[in-house]
Amino acid sequence: MLTQGLRAPTHGPSLFHSHKPVLSGHVASCVPMVASSSARRGRASRRRRRICCSAAAEESTPAVVAAAKRPVTVNAVLTVLPTVGGAFAHIGITRGLDDIGDLLGKSLHLELVSAELDPATGLEKKTIAAYAHKANHGVEAAKYEARFSVPPSFGEIGAVYVRNEHHKEMYLSDIVLSSADDSIAVNISCRDEEFGRQTLAGLNPVSIQLVTEFPLVSKLDPNIYGPPESLITEELIEREIKGIMTVKEALEQKKLFILDYHDLFLPYVHKIRELEDTTMYASRTVFFLTPDDTLRPLAIELTRPASPTKPQWKQVFGPAWDATGAWLWKLAKAHALAHDSGYHQLVSHWLRTHCCVEPYIIAANRQLSQMHPIYRLLHPHFRYTMEINALARVYLINADGIIEQTFSPGKYSLELCSVAYGKLWRFDMESLPADLIRRGMAAEDPAAEHGLKLTIEDYPYAQDGLLIWSAIKQWLTDYVNYYYPDASHVKEDSELQEWWTEVRTKGHADKKDEPWWPVLNTQEDLIHVLTTIIWVASGHHAAVNFGQYHYAGYFPNRPTIARTNMPVEDYSDEEFAKFWAKPEITLLHCYPSQIQATIVMAILDVLSTHAPDEEYLGRGPEASWAQNPVIYAAFERFSGRLKEIEGIIDGRNANPELKNRCGAGIVPYQLLKPYSKPGVTGMGVPNSISI
Amino acid sequence: MLTQGLRAPTHGPSLFHSHKPVLSGHVASCVPMVASSSARRGRASRRRRRICCSAAAEESTPAVVAAAKRPVTVNAVLTVLPTVGGAFAHIGITRGLDDIGDLLGKSLHLELVSAELDPATGLEKKTIAAYAHKANHGVEAAKYEARFSVPPSFGEIGAVYVRNEHHKEMYLSDIVLSSADDSIAVNISCRDEEFGRQTLAGLNPVSIQLVTEFPLVSKLDPNIYGPPESLITEELIEREIKGIMTVKEALEQKKLFILDYHDLFLPYVHKIRELEDTTMYASRTVFFLTPDDTLRPLAIELTRPASPTKPQWKQVFGPAWDATGAWLWKLAKAHALAHDSGYHQLVSHWLRTHCCVEPYIIAANRQLSQMHPIYRLLHPHFRYTMEINALARVYLINADGIIEQTFSPGKYSLELCSVAYGKLWRFDMESLPADLIRRGMAAEDPAAEHGLKLTIEDYPYAQDGLLIWSAIKQWLTDYVNYYYPDASHVKEDSELQEWWTEVRTKGHADKKDEPWWPVLNTQEDLIHVLTTIIWVASGHHAAVNFGQYHYAGYFPNRPTIARTNMPVEDYSDEEFAKFWAKPEITLLHCYPSQIQATIVMAILDVLSTHAPDEEYLGRGPEASWAQNPVIYAAFERFSGRLKEIEGIIDGRNANPELKNRCGAGIVPYQLLKPYSKPGVTGMGVPNSISI
Repeated sequence: MLTQGLRAPTHGPSLFHSHKPVLSGHVASCVPMVASSSARRGRASRRRRRICCSAAAEESTPAVVAAAKRPVTVNAVLTVLPTVGGAFAHIGITRGLDDIGDLLGKSLHLELVSAELDPATGLEKKTIAAYAHKANHGVEAAKYEARFSVPPSFGEIGAVYVRNEHHKEMYLSDIVLSSADDSIAVNISCRDEEFGRQTLAGLNPVSIQLVTEFPLVSKLDPNIYGPPESLITEELIEREIKGIMTVKEALEQKKLFILDYHDLFLPYVHKIRELEDTTMYASRTVFFLTPDDTLRPLAIELTRPASPTKPQWKQVFGPAWDATGAWLWKLAKAHALAHDSGYHQLVSHWLRTHCCVEPYIIAANRQLSQMHPIYRLLHPHFRYTMEINALARVYLINADGIIEQTFSPGKYSLELCSVAYGKLWRFDMESLPADLIRRGMAAEDPAAEHGLKLTIEDYPYAQDGLLIWSAIKQWLTDYVNYYYPDASHVKEDSELQEWWTEVRTKGHADKKDEPWWPVLNTQEDLIHVLTTIIWVASGHHAAVNFGQYHYAGYFPNRPTIARTNMPVEDYSDEEFAKFWAKPEITLLHCYPSQIQATIVMAILDVLSTHAPDEEYLGRGPEASWAQNPVIYAAFERFSGRLKEIEGIIDGRNANPELKNRCGAGIVPYQLLKPYSKPGVTGMGVPNSISI
Repeated sequence: MLTQGLRAPTHGPSLFHSHKPVLSGHVASCVPMVASSSARRGRASRRRRRICCSAAAEESTPAVVAAAKRPVTVNAVLTVLPTVGGAFAHIGITRGLDDIGDLLGKSLHLELVSAELDPATGLEKKTIAAYAHKANHGVEAAKYEARFSVPPSFGEIGAVYVRNEHHKEMYLSDIVLSSADDSIAVNISCRDEEFGRQTLAGLNPVSIQLVTEFPLVSKLDPNIYGPPESLITEELIEREIKGIMTVKEALEQKKLFILDYHDLFLPYVHKIRELEDTTMYASRTVFFLTPDDTLRPLAIELTRPASPTKPQWKQVFGPAWDATGAWLWKLAKAHALAHDSGYHQLVSHWLRTHCCVEPYIIAANRQLSQMHPIYRLLHPHFRYTMEINALARVYLINADGIIEQTFSPGKYSLELCSVAYGKLWRFDMESLPADLIRRGMAAEDPAAEHGLKLTIEDYPYAQDGLLIWSAIKQWLTDYVNYYYPDASHVKEDSELQEWWTEVRTKGHADKKDEPWWPVLNTQEDLIHVLTTIIWVASGHHAAVNFGQYHYAGYFPNRPTIARTNMPVEDYSDEEFAKFWAKPEITLLHCYPSQIQATIVMAILDVLSTHAPDEEYLGRGPEASWAQNPVIYAAFERFSGRLKEIEGIIDGRNANPELKNRCGAGIVPYQLLKPYSKPGVTGMGVPNSISI
């Protein structure tokens, strides 16, 4: 039957070649729309024999374009396959810094060609051009995406003209056009239980803090920003939790927690609202620690401060059992998550790791001899950091760069980063135990492991982080006590003292007079300072960096920006009617745009990647250590302990009692597992900030 | 630039023809897999020139098939476009009873052909065959779906061989193959607020009832079924609601409601579990009426009764703030919704409308002259009912028919229907007011409109239903009092009395001695009986029928069946590990199978359709009435009132205070709007049960 079918179908079939088109170098080629019956007529059809690429169009696109009264947004997705010569393999598989440039590259230029001639002139209509941006790349294919605004006068799309401006040969497999204005059902958003869990075991586990005073009050000037009291009242919280306890009991028993993006963001709300295609609020998100030790989000307060023309606006949103309330809650979560994303990227990640490690590196290179034991100790932890920071300043955090284009604070991103540095950064709080205590997430307890009792026992970042922290500290204790058998050796090491003085007074000149700077008088002082520096460069950075693609690549889980006001704040009747009719579209418009989401997804993929030559904590001792039996043995213990920690973390992730890291469908918390293969693995603690 | 590009691309392009394949009549044609690089090798490649249809394969399919150790499920979706001759237009657009037959038709036969020869024999491997079922049809294209189980020995899929066994020419546009075993992110399930809302304004608004006694206790024999007490405790409920009130207060204030599928389903649990590819529980779902007058689901209890070999198993699930708990809650909702779907289809719809109207029709035709005013009155309300019921008995509720194949109770569907009739059906409770009072959803109140005070004021089915009920009742009051000016006329109308006697003693022979049968002694008696009959045939049927496609066509909103046990009941380690790793797959396996969902979607589309010649309540008076000025005027008032009711319902749907029918993204409650255009409109109250 098969043979017969293949040999001679009764009704003469058309020839339909498989994917053999080639689009290489700077060759211009034309890709017609052939999927709809209308596109088979007219010009595109007559010229079909010159076609060199296939194209598949969504059924509705030409009709949509033809019938629309307003410009229609058309998205094009291009699939590029590896070429036989393997030139693409280089683009597709080799990940690294080149890709950052690629992102910005305008490598594929597209033009939409109308299927109709201009009725007035009889000539071809003006084409509509756009560059395609690389959206992602796998081993087998890469996707590029472009977006066009097609006016109604354009008529049906007859063809797509593609020019490869890339320096490499590309093999374009297909183009799919679709209208972005179609209704899309969005039933997705960060689920409540996952929202809570990720504050403890997600990408930014360093913002959640204990609520110690209630009601919540802003410390900002009420004359400028309006009333400081939060609208999150005792009554409102008790409505949700009173079946378990009162607010008073919850405070006493340390059960209320907050993501507080109020005072930092409030002064920027009006400025950011003046930017195009975005908005801003300050936010407070309050959680309740359930008897299962999981965080249940209770309320999100969004605030717009007073301005010369408008009074303060604020409103509290919460889980709801009516449709409108449920959509408002989803939208409020999108805003709170966008704030968390911005804070994460600018403060938890860039400021606290990349940025603040620079002074240590510069001072070490200026003040310490390369033979100095502390230089040798720190050297692996400074690897590639200045280089990656230089690249970030060119491609990521530059003016109008990727961060400004895709994160909530927009062009105020780096200014906010500076404000956060001024308001929040303290060297003594960069140690993991101090950071936990400062946020109320732990209390000192000499009887407990690591000397700390966690407020939430199942806090994966803290649990695993303390293992790493303690391992580093033990290794440095061995190391420092070997080279500095006496406190006087520390005090009298002039290179060391000069290094530390330069860190404090030149690296952090703004803060040189702060009383909290540690002094280097004893071995303990030195151990603590070095442990803090190495923790920040290794564990802290790994925890906030290598999960970026996993947690934020899928934007509904963690949008980087929320672009529209809440429908209950100053909506026009028309806007409100749209929300009422299709709240899913309002949510989509609030989320990052398609281009923003695509850029973020691609850049987070790069940032989450371990290079093949990545160097991990406790691996490959410095050559000189191998010569010294005491140091070598100490390093071996350190290395062994880190292997042991891998096992402990695996064990925790398999323990169903630990519901914040083990449960149905949960991504296990592996960001502080010391080792990893190359690539995007969501685990591995490198020695240094190298990506 | 365009012209140049079109004229002479530098690198010789391959020809790539547009969709011109034709597959017509009973012609056999072959569709190769060309999208993956592997498929370009080997036999399919060499024979490419004989190919007559395009095919797009998911990138991963061949690899999945090649690498799998167990059989892999491969789904094929075929797109069929209208032929030039318009033959398809007939298939695609004309809806009606023919489609029921089409559903069962095996019109496209597919065979997967291996890309490899059998290494042992050197011959072609055995093909894998399946029929494609029609999944849906739009104006522009129809989709057919097929499912294959591909053993690992099969190797890569080289081609798909398609035979059209349909009697009409079909133009096959493309085939997309995908592996069903791939991980799919399912973030969708009926949302809590929508679950609650649909008990009041959805497809089955006649099951929700007030909780009047607490704790809940089964009335079934504990010796057979195990302990009767529910595990839904006061403590458990207060954990959620105590911020608002206690359980005692909630009972006093009528704030707790239930969907009770416990005692009816419990005796069938073990029997149904013996059927293939399904399971069963009894369920109780408890809701709390929030201060917004919306229902918030608090708990679902699932029960398996005791059996000779196993003890009773039951567990309560609720909204949760940990991942595992949240997935179990989604699964529990799937079960509860499947129970509601089964009850809806078998009891609320088939039994209470289609089935129980038959005795009235048969007795009327046997006992009343065609000239009799009550015959003339009822005649429009009996239109096509016997015919559609006969068809349903052939295609839907027959043994191994569509209902048994796709709804939870399986082959016990009609038995359950009979049991429900025996246990629950009472003529006197079929009137809308009595039904509401019986369920605790209303209480008599002479001061209130319609003489009833609703327990939940914003209960769209009851609110709109009472308008229709009262309009019918007014019309019948006018009609009956005209023909029966005196009670004695009722008593002495022997045709009428014979009709009613036959309804009671022959039509409902099983229940002929029930004390609740009304007698026909007065005009009021007659008015009430007739209003009940006409309400059931018009308003009740419309409310539970014409929203079927809207509410149940998308299966995650209302699965018709839940096929797998809860992961916490007797799972093997392997099954539980699968749930833990990919709970979304467990949920998908619990939901209806692809074939079940497809059949249900198609059949509900048919059932939800108003024919072009549909006759609506209050439209087109019987010819004889036009001759009688009194009756004609009364009918005109009835007709006018129904027009007025349309406006009242539209007004309610635009009132944001009524959160159960008006809110962001909510489908307005229109099922009891009297009029409709033809087609699937989700509104319109026909005179009779005609579909």
